[in-house]
Amino acid sequence: MLTSVIAMIEKYDMLQKGDRVVIGVSGGADSISLLHLLWSLREKYRLQLCAAHLNHGFRGEEADEDARFVESFSSQLGIPCYIRKVDVPQYRQERKVSAQLAAREVRYRFFQDIVREWGANKLALAHNRDDQAETVLLRLIRGAGLDGLCGIPPVRPGEGFVIIRPLLAVSREMIEQYCVENDLNFRTDWSNFKTVYLRNKVRLELLPYLKKEFNSQIDSLLAQTAEMLQDERNYLEQEAEKIFSELVEEVEPKKVKINLAGFKKQPVAIQRRLLRKAVIFLGGNPQDLSFNRMSELLHLIEKGRVGAIGTIKQGLVVCKGYEDFTLGEEETKPKEFFSYPLNLPGTTILPELSLIVEGKLISKSQYLLEKSMVKGGWEAFFDWEKLSLPLIIRNRRAGDRFNPLGMKGTKKLKKFFIDRKIPVQERDKIPLIVSSDGIIWVVGCQQSDLGKVTLETETVLKLKVKPLSDS
Amino acid sequence: MLTSVIAMIEKYDMLQKGDRVVIGVSGGADSISLLHLLWSLREKYRLQLCAAHLNHGFRGEEADEDARFVESFSSQLGIPCYIRKVDVPQYRQERKVSAQLAAREVRYRFFQDIVREWGANKLALAHNRDDQAETVLLRLIRGAGLDGLCGIPPVRPGEGFVIIRPLLAVSREMIEQYCVENDLNFRTDWSNFKTVYLRNKVRLELLPYLKKEFNSQIDSLLAQTAEMLQDERNYLEQEAEKIFSELVEEVEPKKVKINLAGFKKQPVAIQRRLLRKAVIFLGGNPQDLSFNRMSELLHLIEKGRVGAIGTIKQGLVVCKGYEDFTLGEEETKPKEFFSYPLNLPGTTILPELSLIVEGKLISKSQYLLEKSMVKGGWEAFFDWEKLSLPLIIRNRRAGDRFNPLGMKGTKKLKKFFIDRKIPVQERDKIPLIVSSDGIIWVVGCQQSDLGKVTLETETVLKLKVKPLSDS
Repeated sequence: MLTSVIAMIEKYDMLQKGDRVVIGVSGGADSISLLHLLWSLREKYRLQLCAAHLNHGFRGEEADEDARFVESFSSQLGIPCYIRKVDVPQYRQERKVSAQLAAREVRYRFFQDIVREWGANKLALAHNRDDQAETVLLRLIRGAGLDGLCGIPPVRPGEGFVIIRPLLAVSREMIEQYCVENDLNFRTDWSNFKTVYLRNKVRLELLPYLKKEFNSQIDSLLAQTAEMLQDERNYLEQEAEKIFSELVEEVEPKKVKINLAGFKKQPVAIQRRLLRKAVIFLGGNPQDLSFNRMSELLHLIEKGRVGAIGTIKQGLVVCKGYEDFTLGEEETKPKEFFSYPLNLPGTTILPELSLIVEGKLISKSQYLLEKSMVKGGWEAFFDWEKLSLPLIIRNRRAGDRFNPLGMKGTKKLKKFFIDRKIPVQERDKIPLIVSSDGIIWVVGCQQSDLGKVTLETETVLKLKVKPLSDS
Repeated sequence: MLTSVIAMIEKYDMLQKGDRVVIGVSGGADSISLLHLLWSLREKYRLQLCAAHLNHGFRGEEADEDARFVESFSSQLGIPCYIRKVDVPQYRQERKVSAQLAAREVRYRFFQDIVREWGANKLALAHNRDDQAETVLLRLIRGAGLDGLCGIPPVRPGEGFVIIRPLLAVSREMIEQYCVENDLNFRTDWSNFKTVYLRNKVRLELLPYLKKEFNSQIDSLLAQTAEMLQDERNYLEQEAEKIFSELVEEVEPKKVKINLAGFKKQPVAIQRRLLRKAVIFLGGNPQDLSFNRMSELLHLIEKGRVGAIGTIKQGLVVCKGYEDFTLGEEETKPKEFFSYPLNLPGTTILPELSLIVEGKLISKSQYLLEKSMVKGGWEAFFDWEKLSLPLIIRNRRAGDRFNPLGMKGTKKLKKFFIDRKIPVQERDKIPLIVSSDGIIWVVGCQQSDLGKVTLETETVLKLKVKPLSDS
């Protein structure tokens, strides 16, 4: 077995000389073998080793014995051993998660702590080829894509350290053989034999059945499949990563924008990965993107109308715009209508949009001077005498129309927004300046013919809209 | 069911208006439904339809009844029906293949013939979602990578036509329901219920077991997995195709050369695909590249010494050179030693290498003239008076040494070849011109100090080596 473990270590560059390795040791045959094996390789790789055992409190006295066993075996080998007792059942009740998930979370956190405390750079875990085969089958049964079918990775980056699994290519049988040959005792976790856990059922029923009735080599074939799929997945991930950084832009915290044309050009395999990556980027769980939900979202992005919204999960949505689509938190505010009379001359605050409007009366000559310096659509000038007061600032209402400057006749505001490719979700946020005769300015977009400055104008109203934070 | 079939057709663009479609009809529920369904869509897509039934002679009288049934149902729908009887058992015996493989080969050839005869552009087959789930499981059990786990493709190009499978997203249950609703009779192929075939065993035992004990949705999940994997595979194939055309060069019939540096830069997922594509390009079967063989070959290419040879299968090898490696037919000739005295002046034929050697004696002044016009390493000049005759032309022998022109002392020929990065398999094909004193010319590479033209030379021997075909 030593040879195939070394081959595995070399193949994946698992160990470098001088590594400090924390070994997760439950006390079972797998982890005891791993501990013994790395101990016997400690000089070859100049390793610093330490054992870490979590007493997860599921099995009372038996669990305490496990801990004592690991401690004594480690000390026989001269390896320091960290033991922590955590009440997983309590943790589980607090978080309302399954026993297996709770145990995994607690265990991982424990290992992470020990790695930090002890200044390690590697964490070695004792998963073997049977675990790999089980995982692949389990994922297939539960429904999986390529990433799921990749099973357990031999090497995976943790936070500030690397997780390695040197036994991933050896069978449980070989491990038990190794224990016999090296006269190693180990503890048996009887909960591994309860078929109430789906994983145990796969291990104890499905795999033996497949082995007997279909293919005696099924374990090693599944492990090979996992290995090949990992290589394929890694390549796809790498490509998707490149494309993600080109196409996806963070527009505000918890919101990303993706260029539609660029996205549509991608093959669907990359599209799926981009959406999953975007969800991860936003702190979500990519598992929320089930096959069907993913298909719906891709269809929405491909064929949906502008403004269409698709739900990734409660509170996280995809929203299709004209040239982009966004992924982000759903805007939970109900649609807000606002309307304020403008203080003229003076300033008016628009709390809904965090904007401030300044109104000044200026002379014609001043107007001619200032007009040439206006930049962007956030300042506008009007014929003060021609405006029917009061002026108000508000957002759009159904049926709004106006007469864009230089155009004959009026146009529906909605049509104007559509022509300007302003996404639906933006439209309620665009302030309008309205006189008693109608809209005189679609702020940031378009002035109206109504109230425009002409040759006859004597006093000019200058309006300037800017973010509250600027003032 | 009609809706989901139409959705499938649209999703994969299976039908275009005016298509001529041959439908493979065994007479079972699947193919009878497919025939009926496409018949009911004939106006929507303006289809020309024709049924094709193969009587494969496995089941005697029953098979004849199947044929009559398909014929009569087709004629009820007003669809022409082609029937052919082929003795598959005999075909099978001739080719020594399994009954299932023989049936598949014969069936495919039959469909191909009908497609051509009838001028069709599509072939519709009745595989359904259960078939898909079975295929994925079967492949997994037999050992597969990504491509195998993709299962049955909904659309696949044939030779001059396209194979479509409009029922691939519907379950057998839905199909049987469709038969009931549309009052369709169908034939039952009892051989589908023999569990001696692994596929039937998967269908009749494994899938029901998984459905009952693990996941009642397993069929549709496996079909979803297949669909996702297909998208991933298609992308990888597309990428590999591009890289293949950049890196792989056909150097002679049945032999391709791949640049080593370029190959090594690729991720292993692409490397595997490149090798598989190269094998297909050479007319081989990519299934010969088992997981282990593939790993060995990749290791040989990555780490093997120059000249190392790896077997893909009997007669097909990978051979590592300095800057490239080749895939091609194994050179079955045993190593041949050759040796011929040179006719001087005159010509000598070298049949082993299809070369001809011309020897001429020329004056010093003629030499000075000709020397300036020599191109490449295929002509050389010697001091005729200083050569110890006879001269012979031969390939290398163990222990050969020579004194390269301009160098002090002799050098092993082997070392010289290594320094020049001449691949092992080329070395026996390099002719040497040898006098009684030793090697005077490594043809095409390097002249020796021995016999070189000096200021004192009066008569010059000019040797020229060229392909036999040039003369």
